[in-house]
Amino acid sequence: MEFIKTPVKGMNDFLPADMRLREYLLSMIKEAYASYGFMQIETPVMEHIENLTSKQGGDNEKLIFKVLKRGADLQRALQAPDGQLADNGLRYDLTVPLARFYANNKEKLPTPFKALQIGNVWRADNPQKGRFRQFTQCDIDILGDDSNLAEIELIGATVNMLSAILGTVGLSRFTVRINDRRLLRAVAVYAGFAEEAIDGVLISLDKFDKIGFDGIRKELIENGAKEDVVDRYLAIYRQVKPGCTCAEFAALIGETLSEEAIQNIDEIIACVRTMVEAEVQLVFDPTLVRGMGYYTGPIFEIGLDGYSFSIAGGGRYDQMIGKFCGQEVCACGFSIGFERIVTILKDSGVQEKMETAESIAFLLDKNLPSEKKVEIFAQAMKLRKEGKRVSVQPLRKNPRPQIEKLEKEGYTQFEKIYHR
Amino acid sequence: MEFIKTPVKGMNDFLPADMRLREYLLSMIKEAYASYGFMQIETPVMEHIENLTSKQGGDNEKLIFKVLKRGADLQRALQAPDGQLADNGLRYDLTVPLARFYANNKEKLPTPFKALQIGNVWRADNPQKGRFRQFTQCDIDILGDDSNLAEIELIGATVNMLSAILGTVGLSRFTVRINDRRLLRAVAVYAGFAEEAIDGVLISLDKFDKIGFDGIRKELIENGAKEDVVDRYLAIYRQVKPGCTCAEFAALIGETLSEEAIQNIDEIIACVRTMVEAEVQLVFDPTLVRGMGYYTGPIFEIGLDGYSFSIAGGGRYDQMIGKFCGQEVCACGFSIGFERIVTILKDSGVQEKMETAESIAFLLDKNLPSEKKVEIFAQAMKLRKEGKRVSVQPLRKNPRPQIEKLEKEGYTQFEKIYHR
Repeated sequence: MEFIKTPVKGMNDFLPADMRLREYLLSMIKEAYASYGFMQIETPVMEHIENLTSKQGGDNEKLIFKVLKRGADLQRALQAPDGQLADNGLRYDLTVPLARFYANNKEKLPTPFKALQIGNVWRADNPQKGRFRQFTQCDIDILGDDSNLAEIELIGATVNMLSAILGTVGLSRFTVRINDRRLLRAVAVYAGFAEEAIDGVLISLDKFDKIGFDGIRKELIENGAKEDVVDRYLAIYRQVKPGCTCAEFAALIGETLSEEAIQNIDEIIACVRTMVEAEVQLVFDPTLVRGMGYYTGPIFEIGLDGYSFSIAGGGRYDQMIGKFCGQEVCACGFSIGFERIVTILKDSGVQEKMETAESIAFLLDKNLPSEKKVEIFAQAMKLRKEGKRVSVQPLRKNPRPQIEKLEKEGYTQFEKIYHR
Repeated sequence: MEFIKTPVKGMNDFLPADMRLREYLLSMIKEAYASYGFMQIETPVMEHIENLTSKQGGDNEKLIFKVLKRGADLQRALQAPDGQLADNGLRYDLTVPLARFYANNKEKLPTPFKALQIGNVWRADNPQKGRFRQFTQCDIDILGDDSNLAEIELIGATVNMLSAILGTVGLSRFTVRINDRRLLRAVAVYAGFAEEAIDGVLISLDKFDKIGFDGIRKELIENGAKEDVVDRYLAIYRQVKPGCTCAEFAALIGETLSEEAIQNIDEIIACVRTMVEAEVQLVFDPTLVRGMGYYTGPIFEIGLDGYSFSIAGGGRYDQMIGKFCGQEVCACGFSIGFERIVTILKDSGVQEKMETAESIAFLLDKNLPSEKKVEIFAQAMKLRKEGKRVSVQPLRKNPRPQIEKLEKEGYTQFEKIYHR
């Protein structure tokens, strides 16, 4: 018998100090979103393998942890020439489960439905620093609202949630960047790219922060685009001035985009403006792409000054839920980088600032008579009723390390009870 | 492409109302145990298949959801004559993960270590009413305390936690039954059973509530026990009077049990008495067995008047962690029937009594001009800052079902904003 002490590769044990931080963050998230009317739901961690491999999940489908069939089903699969060994898999995101949940429970839910999901997902990725095979995702989604009220509520709620959490450690300089997929496509069409080339063009544009205009130009031409098309394309983005509104930008490409799509972004920004603190930057950013191909309208991302990665991102995806469940459902969502926020909070020393109850440890000599023990448990109970944290435990032969470890867990008072 | 709407067999989608109840219960549990010094920890849902199939998990090992190997590992396993297809499995309880966690992190943890674990476990059981393939377990364990302070803290904390939760719906008549495995074995030895027959004898005694003394007698004799041994055995239990202490009971079998083991139970009861409400019954019950073979000392169970099943159970298991991780660690634990308590609370109508914030829905005409939208989002924000729950959403063509569904989710105020 071989017993392995370490967790499964790429997965973590969370110690009490880790859990205090995670639980603090979770409770802040739940409380904040509840006040905007988001309702928590939960689905099983396992989904039917058919749902997970429907080709809507992109590269994540290659990373599924599959669950082996059992009993006679497994035997049949092993004997079949091309038998499917798995009937279920662990979810790789919270969007597939949301689509299934909504298809299964729609009649019981309000329309629009404002969902909050917090849960683990699993991907058999190569573990790296900060990338795990089990990690927590936190998603809010509004299903069945085709108006921009959905985008406004999602962005306003998320910015305020992040302010409440990160503001406590002095991090409050957020930048929300907003764009629209339709605008990205319209610019490419205006420049002369063919419809089927656009996805590739956007992959290059997405690298703007890393490779700049020259890098994009080089890449597009290498990929076979015509020089004049590329130059016309980039010329539009080169004209963008800081603080440019969506309407001003759209004017550069003429009439290829609907009036409504243009007004939409400026309205989202104006409404979110009234919801959030003045120091939050809300900007229209025509170069924002966001990787996911399934977005159909506005897309948005939240960054934090001093951090290169975004801490939340989302957008409208009106066709995806329908593709999963065969029923058209407009949808808009925001995914918060839970593990990234945990890391930021850890680095910021928030743990020292987190309030803990006054904590007392009663350390008892092992030979204490019954009457004395009864007395101490009564006293401990009294202190607990006053809101204190109290632990009654044996006094070890060498109490020094015992006390040091307890101090690390927030205990400040130690009552050693000896038997005389 | 086939999209399956229902959850995986035996697993549940939790709707917002379900989640409100579960989250309420979870927060009560966490808060209560924290004040006794229990520290929350978490482990990955997946464990190494070797750890899950080490024969310490009993029948649960037959119910493991196994996770398929990936890539080249899987190919090798498929080609090997008796290849292991799985490298991991989903945990079937929280005890195996606790043993691994403790072996992995011992130096960083205080001794004794008071752990709180709340998490899902998976068993490929046949689903029945109230039995699921994914369900939440809630365990508290004290590792590294060989004194009865551990039992006292576990029982006192759990009874008070349950009182706080179930007391709110008028359920507060708990009975805690306590026994000791060593006493159970001593009685069997005294009566004349062979050491190796004892486990079987205890399985029969465990059925006392269902089949009574006559049923046990019949079963033991059918299983090959001698009549005189069986009669001597049952005669001891027949002499037990209500309110009998452990010392009084032990006197019936003479000197076969150590003084210390006898005093232990009475001391546990005396100390817990000072911690809990007067209406809680604390009884020594010499017929309490509890199924699990791994218990080594005191065992205990909490029942609730009017319910046939127990709502929490546990005991001392000084050898089990060592068998898993090869390092001797004394341990004592309590497992709370989370899903049972959810069911009891649901039936009790606690949901109507749960406090929710005042909830207002702004229902907006889709043609509202920007300025008006800005105004409404500002107003909604103001109300949220006052602690109210506010949702801004489109007014549907037929608002009646929209409002009815929102009422079910706790909304009481509806502001319809039309565009004139």
